[in-house]
Amino acid sequence: MRAAIFNGPHDITVGERPDPVVREPTDAVVRVVLGCVCGSDLWYFRGVSPHPPGSIGHEFIGVVEEVGGEVTGIAVGDLVVAPFIYSDMSCPHCLNGSTISCVQGGNFGNGEIDGGQGEAVRVPLAASTLVPVPGSGHSDAMLRSLLTLSDVMATGHHAAVSAGVKKGDTAAVVGDGAVGLCAVLASRRLGAERIIALSRHPERQKLARSFGATDVVEARGEEASQSVLELTGGIGVDAAMECVGTAESIGTAFAMARPGSTVGIVGVPNGEAPFAGTFFRNVGWRGGPAPARIYIPELLGDVLDGAINPGLVFDYETDLEHTPDAYRAMDERRAIKSLIRVGSI
Amino acid sequence: MRAAIFNGPHDITVGERPDPVVREPTDAVVRVVLGCVCGSDLWYFRGVSPHPPGSIGHEFIGVVEEVGGEVTGIAVGDLVVAPFIYSDMSCPHCLNGSTISCVQGGNFGNGEIDGGQGEAVRVPLAASTLVPVPGSGHSDAMLRSLLTLSDVMATGHHAAVSAGVKKGDTAAVVGDGAVGLCAVLASRRLGAERIIALSRHPERQKLARSFGATDVVEARGEEASQSVLELTGGIGVDAAMECVGTAESIGTAFAMARPGSTVGIVGVPNGEAPFAGTFFRNVGWRGGPAPARIYIPELLGDVLDGAINPGLVFDYETDLEHTPDAYRAMDERRAIKSLIRVGSI
Repeated sequence: MRAAIFNGPHDITVGERPDPVVREPTDAVVRVVLGCVCGSDLWYFRGVSPHPPGSIGHEFIGVVEEVGGEVTGIAVGDLVVAPFIYSDMSCPHCLNGSTISCVQGGNFGNGEIDGGQGEAVRVPLAASTLVPVPGSGHSDAMLRSLLTLSDVMATGHHAAVSAGVKKGDTAAVVGDGAVGLCAVLASRRLGAERIIALSRHPERQKLARSFGATDVVEARGEEASQSVLELTGGIGVDAAMECVGTAESIGTAFAMARPGSTVGIVGVPNGEAPFAGTFFRNVGWRGGPAPARIYIPELLGDVLDGAINPGLVFDYETDLEHTPDAYRAMDERRAIKSLIRVGSI
Repeated sequence: MRAAIFNGPHDITVGERPDPVVREPTDAVVRVVLGCVCGSDLWYFRGVSPHPPGSIGHEFIGVVEEVGGEVTGIAVGDLVVAPFIYSDMSCPHCLNGSTISCVQGGNFGNGEIDGGQGEAVRVPLAASTLVPVPGSGHSDAMLRSLLTLSDVMATGHHAAVSAGVKKGDTAAVVGDGAVGLCAVLASRRLGAERIIALSRHPERQKLARSFGATDVVEARGEEASQSVLELTGGIGVDAAMECVGTAESIGTAFAMARPGSTVGIVGVPNGEAPFAGTFFRNVGWRGGPAPARIYIPELLGDVLDGAINPGLVFDYETDLEHTPDAYRAMDERRAIKSLIRVGSI
């Protein structure tokens, strides 16, 4: 099959990889319909984070092509959403809601396990990993929104859940990438009354507003946290979300958080969490990689109802053969998030 | 009046300070019955944290001697518990439950504001700060437990609340000082089924067990977290609490926390919170100085009912004139926590 192959930093090609087959009775093979490029893929592309050579991409929706003998609840022909890691949903970590630490789990597109940027994927632990999408004849817009449940919308939701967003809250989101925008949408969905988006890009500001942002702050760093403090009468926000991961953005998120609140962090941190300055204000943090599998069923309903339309984060699209262009568009910040159209439904 | 006076590290004396009087209509003057020495007082005593010269001590119970014209709900003669900071209970931070950040608030015993290690205290914002104790004729044991609500038991409770201890949980407490022991008691009170106390002192282990610890781990550092992981089948605990504040103890608490859990931190941190290693396991932290005023009403009922007896943490006692001995007993680890008997009820 054709698939994107990571050769090293700034070197993604599309080539041949072995056709996936059912190896374990708990496997399924899924033909990919839509894939995309994650912000974390960019870290590999840029050489900031290491990635083994081979398969890449961990976000996809597709159609089940084959199932192993022990796979239940998933049938050939089903349209499915794959969370970015596979998990057994029965180990203590999964039962605690931490599918990312599943004792049998693993990442798609890690060099060896098939990635979502390819024609097909062998999905281990298919019954507990894949979430079938009810209905048929979904529009292209709907499919794009379904794809976001694989990672980006689940991650934005995780930022909001980790920050404890609740009805009536004032929230603020640091980061206007696809995750930050989804965090805005998730905050609105969880009932935040006021949502402050930090963004200096007109197009992203516009999308943030359409997702529910009530205020936009263009400043960065200390100036940004000062602006947010001013907007909140010197109090700070009930729920600050960090969707970037740099030392500066982490500092900004903590500085704008009101005493007693919890910063939701989903941007892979490349800085340290400040401690001394936040302890005395009772500002802690929660977060990490999202337990997407746990969130998908809940978010799926709202996507299918049209209550949320996170697929709007895709503002660039191409086909599988042009996957390197999808990376470059994001690397050069020409795109918020790149969609890769792989197959038809 | 007589009061402890902080002159500098290792230099606490008992001398004369001005008799407190009602200065503002919102003030009350409280005659101190019992005071005590806090773990944080030891940091000042040892010169680790700075403290201005003058009044010291922030934990006390006493009898109201005089009230200003605007003080409601508190009457002369009332036995009251004072949380370690005063607060207005009406500013946005107080309404958010963060009395420690009250816009009008402040610390007792900060050099200038009277301390709990003295004969009397002028209490600002008395109506919203002091909590009257119902009933009369309380036993000495009861008074000792009431005193703990001022700080140490409220702080142990804050560790447990911050870690999200809930019914059926497995919890672990790093630190066998008075706060750590109270965190054990608070965890049991919140329904933890299994409570692992880290302690290598037989007397403290005994008290921890009487407070609800089901397991004791004597090891420290990496060996300790390994032991806790073994005790929990490799999973880690649902709720880890950090009641020390050193880099090692913070690391231990994070290492024993299961994926997806939140470490409750109340030990004033002298180390950094690890980030890289915890983010990918979704282990965050919450905590800081306890909003004691918020917790006192809830804990007071259980103390008066005899459901909890946190006063057992006092294993040394003396009178006001011997306050320096009270510090030394704790400094030399001869005492878990020193009680200072100031006046009679």
